[in-house]
Amino acid sequence: MLHYTPPSQDLAFILNDVLDANAVLSALPRYSGVGTDVLLHIADEAGRFAAEQVLPLNHTADQSGCTWQDGKVVTPPGFKQAYAQYCELGWPSMCADEADGGQALPRLVFSITNEILSAASHAFVMYAAIHHCASACLRHSATESLQRRWLPLLATGQVTSSMCMTEPHAGSDIGLLSTRAEPAPDGSYRITGQKIFASGGDHDLTENIAHLVLARIAGAPAGSRGLSLFLVPKILDDGQANPIFCDGIEHKMGLHGSATCSLRFESAQGWLVGEPNKGLAAMFPMMNEARLLSGLQALGISDLAFQNALAYAQERRQGRAANGGQPAPIINHPDVQRMLLTQKAFTEGGRAFVHWVALLIDQADWATDAQTRQDTANLVGLLTPVIKGFLTENAQTSTYNALQVFGGHGFIAETGIEQLVRDVRVTTIYEGTTSIQAHDLLTRKVLADNGQRLGLLLHTIKQWAAAQHPEHTFFTQAALNTVAKLDAATRHLALRYTENTELTLQASVAYLRLAGHTVLAYLWARCAIAAAQAANAGPWHNAKIETARFYIEHLLPETDQLLAAIQAPARPWADALAA
Amino acid sequence: MLHYTPPSQDLAFILNDVLDANAVLSALPRYSGVGTDVLLHIADEAGRFAAEQVLPLNHTADQSGCTWQDGKVVTPPGFKQAYAQYCELGWPSMCADEADGGQALPRLVFSITNEILSAASHAFVMYAAIHHCASACLRHSATESLQRRWLPLLATGQVTSSMCMTEPHAGSDIGLLSTRAEPAPDGSYRITGQKIFASGGDHDLTENIAHLVLARIAGAPAGSRGLSLFLVPKILDDGQANPIFCDGIEHKMGLHGSATCSLRFESAQGWLVGEPNKGLAAMFPMMNEARLLSGLQALGISDLAFQNALAYAQERRQGRAANGGQPAPIINHPDVQRMLLTQKAFTEGGRAFVHWVALLIDQADWATDAQTRQDTANLVGLLTPVIKGFLTENAQTSTYNALQVFGGHGFIAETGIEQLVRDVRVTTIYEGTTSIQAHDLLTRKVLADNGQRLGLLLHTIKQWAAAQHPEHTFFTQAALNTVAKLDAATRHLALRYTENTELTLQASVAYLRLAGHTVLAYLWARCAIAAAQAANAGPWHNAKIETARFYIEHLLPETDQLLAAIQAPARPWADALAA
Repeated sequence: MLHYTPPSQDLAFILNDVLDANAVLSALPRYSGVGTDVLLHIADEAGRFAAEQVLPLNHTADQSGCTWQDGKVVTPPGFKQAYAQYCELGWPSMCADEADGGQALPRLVFSITNEILSAASHAFVMYAAIHHCASACLRHSATESLQRRWLPLLATGQVTSSMCMTEPHAGSDIGLLSTRAEPAPDGSYRITGQKIFASGGDHDLTENIAHLVLARIAGAPAGSRGLSLFLVPKILDDGQANPIFCDGIEHKMGLHGSATCSLRFESAQGWLVGEPNKGLAAMFPMMNEARLLSGLQALGISDLAFQNALAYAQERRQGRAANGGQPAPIINHPDVQRMLLTQKAFTEGGRAFVHWVALLIDQADWATDAQTRQDTANLVGLLTPVIKGFLTENAQTSTYNALQVFGGHGFIAETGIEQLVRDVRVTTIYEGTTSIQAHDLLTRKVLADNGQRLGLLLHTIKQWAAAQHPEHTFFTQAALNTVAKLDAATRHLALRYTENTELTLQASVAYLRLAGHTVLAYLWARCAIAAAQAANAGPWHNAKIETARFYIEHLLPETDQLLAAIQAPARPWADALAA
Repeated sequence: MLHYTPPSQDLAFILNDVLDANAVLSALPRYSGVGTDVLLHIADEAGRFAAEQVLPLNHTADQSGCTWQDGKVVTPPGFKQAYAQYCELGWPSMCADEADGGQALPRLVFSITNEILSAASHAFVMYAAIHHCASACLRHSATESLQRRWLPLLATGQVTSSMCMTEPHAGSDIGLLSTRAEPAPDGSYRITGQKIFASGGDHDLTENIAHLVLARIAGAPAGSRGLSLFLVPKILDDGQANPIFCDGIEHKMGLHGSATCSLRFESAQGWLVGEPNKGLAAMFPMMNEARLLSGLQALGISDLAFQNALAYAQERRQGRAANGGQPAPIINHPDVQRMLLTQKAFTEGGRAFVHWVALLIDQADWATDAQTRQDTANLVGLLTPVIKGFLTENAQTSTYNALQVFGGHGFIAETGIEQLVRDVRVTTIYEGTTSIQAHDLLTRKVLADNGQRLGLLLHTIKQWAAAQHPEHTFFTQAALNTVAKLDAATRHLALRYTENTELTLQASVAYLRLAGHTVLAYLWARCAIAAAQAANAGPWHNAKIETARFYIEHLLPETDQLLAAIQAPARPWADALAA
């Protein structure tokens, strides 16, 4: 059985010492009364709920999974009770508007609490956090009456949502979707088609589910420009079931507690969200939140894996200590330390990353001056694919190392570590694969505006570095060196892009990882300097500084490899796969 | 359902064009009559057996697993019949001596056939290849009478073996083993103790199993120097069961078809193999063969994953072609090509690696002049941990990429790819973790003899490079550059080792990977030049050359990262993990 301790000290350090969240929030009138003391208190409460009510369900959820019978999904033992309590305690309403019955807390609260909940159970979060993504979508594009009807229900958790995009022959390429929407006389639509891979497409936690479905209105253009978005409830207002049928759930490598449903819509009644043929634009606020949520899941799971690998390494005794004597805990072995420090560097660095971006979202939404809103929104747009593509891949490394620290015992189901490896595997696939994120980052976010958004990030880092005391040069220089590499890579690819799009895309994932390391080098430098300057500095802060050094000296050199691959001669690859 | 095509063309290319196996074997009197035509014919037969008889069992073996009831293990459906046929066709006897009823074929035959069998079913190979490892052990250390008793039974496959080392509190650190051996008046011993993680420790494929058990004779010293090795049969000569009890099997992340047993020896009768307290030395030939076998498993599984990912990428249509029009197969996407080429480079490079080393073993065993025997044996000793540590880690990347190419469909059990990810996971753990291999390579194989064995490898590469035509400089230079990096790393660590052992070990895994890339760069260079010079050169050979370029330009730059990490300032890491 895995144990979990919420990362209270690290969260306090990141919010107070690194991000200065009090200053940021107090500049936003909507949140001027919300201090980090409140946020950290909420984190403690979330930690208690997660560790006591949710974590104990997670291993059973893997073993028993969801069951499907006669078109209905039953969630794993205890999920229903835990979800009811989750709603009763008001967790879904945290960031909802007061008008919708919410508590109007900063987006940062969602970030913190969902890191914590994800550590306790990835599967539980699949049901429990989707309301946030769906609400973002509705607030952005739905009519006033749809918003009034559904936002309060999502805020109480009384209704969950599911994102219905994928069809058997349309995954990454949603332009191929064929689900149809026929206008009805009453202004609603009748939706017909088959969707697969709909997480939480059916379950027994709530009576109703507000499906958000991409479909094509009769006569709409082919491709992604002919897609419209619809809200299609499981249960209609008159209490009747909409003709939506769950034909089965997938048997997956991991995440067994989350039902991945095949749904058949047979002329189901739905309501347009946003404008006709603008379904993608309407879906994007939901998709972006889901991508950021994937980063939180990757982070939470990585932290759980790290905490348990660390504890195991402190207890398990194998091999003599350097000075002879009794068997020493394996944490004394340098290679075990390397595996653990890799996890620590990716996990704590990832934590600073996701919560920094959450704070940027609060600024983008509520800053008083337009320039700040625009700049922070641009940074969030730039960094969303980086969080999704970089942190979810790092989580594979982290959980891999955790299992490796457990050795043969890690390969055994009983220990619980191997479940995390299987669960987290999907995070680099769903909500857009790493390839998709890298394509989005390189072409749409960086090259499309001639590097203006990227310039904002690099300027932020350079400006910060210039303001630091020279005694911290080791850290600021590491950040600036990485900025220089990303800059060189960007110029190189911008030039190549004008000659050959396809060959430029060969480097997209390497470019995304280089961008990820640029952010991480910057944030680890900030963490190291903040730790050095902390009023209460002690061994915990020293560990921060030493972890930053480890990251810079042992993980950051991946950027050499990435830059070499990016700058390698452009050669078509098709012939290498021929024959 | 996965499909598998045995790699006939690549094997022919590697044996004939790259390794010149005919010339090597004809210089060994024992094998002078064995040409590559014979070897390739055997490979074809093995391929037919593997694809038709074994592969169809592999997915079911994952789903139903082994069952344990009343102390007995039942293997998955079809394994018993397939194993009987495997024996009937004479596969286990291939490399056994004629005196033992074997066919006295080169070690290279074991390498080729077990790459192929591993592709068809990792779990099946766990039972079917262990006779080879056990025979190596017995030939090396057992008394003549033990050899005469057991080697013929292992050669027919009538008896399998299991390696009984690990105990609950002694994994990597076998010095902690506590199983006892009491001398009996008849010269045998009575073995008492509990072993875990014994693969094939019980099963229903054969009546008898020859357990090879590490135990401590009463009065022996503590630690690994007090261990002795015993052959402990499941069934004694009089047909009575030895008191060995299988208390259960593990539930594992993968490899469900292989029974991982807990065995209890209750004064079971066993016979000493090798000298008292020299159990480790007696075990090592078995362990080394098992480590090389892990490399073959990693290779076979990687090939199966690659073949299926490639086929899927050629069939699955998503996303427009660059010039518009209908959805194109996803193999047209540059990042999909990158994922596939990474698999191809690791798999085909790994194939050249393992079969090269197999041929070195044949030379080490049967070359007529003592210097060749010594040099090749030294190279095999040096390269065994590299094959184990490098190829099994690369197999994680390969299967990861294969699943990623399948996208969401890869995460679904039905596709069969996710099983490979789970199965192959254990190869970096059992038979000594990657940490253990790296420690062995750096301290025992390289630093212990002041780099003499390593010098042999580097000299081989340099000598080969100097003999190549200047038009191939791109490839020879890549190999030589990597040699230079490994050389620099070795000097750096040798110096550090004299100052601080622990800090040197921080770099051990990076060093192992650098050594792995050195071999792979050399072999890919040989493959590229051989392809360029092939008499029948066509698109297949061109693909080889282009894959070599991809490896050199996109994967080999990992050596920059590795060298940077190795040369980073030596800092103790314990403080970074404190608090």
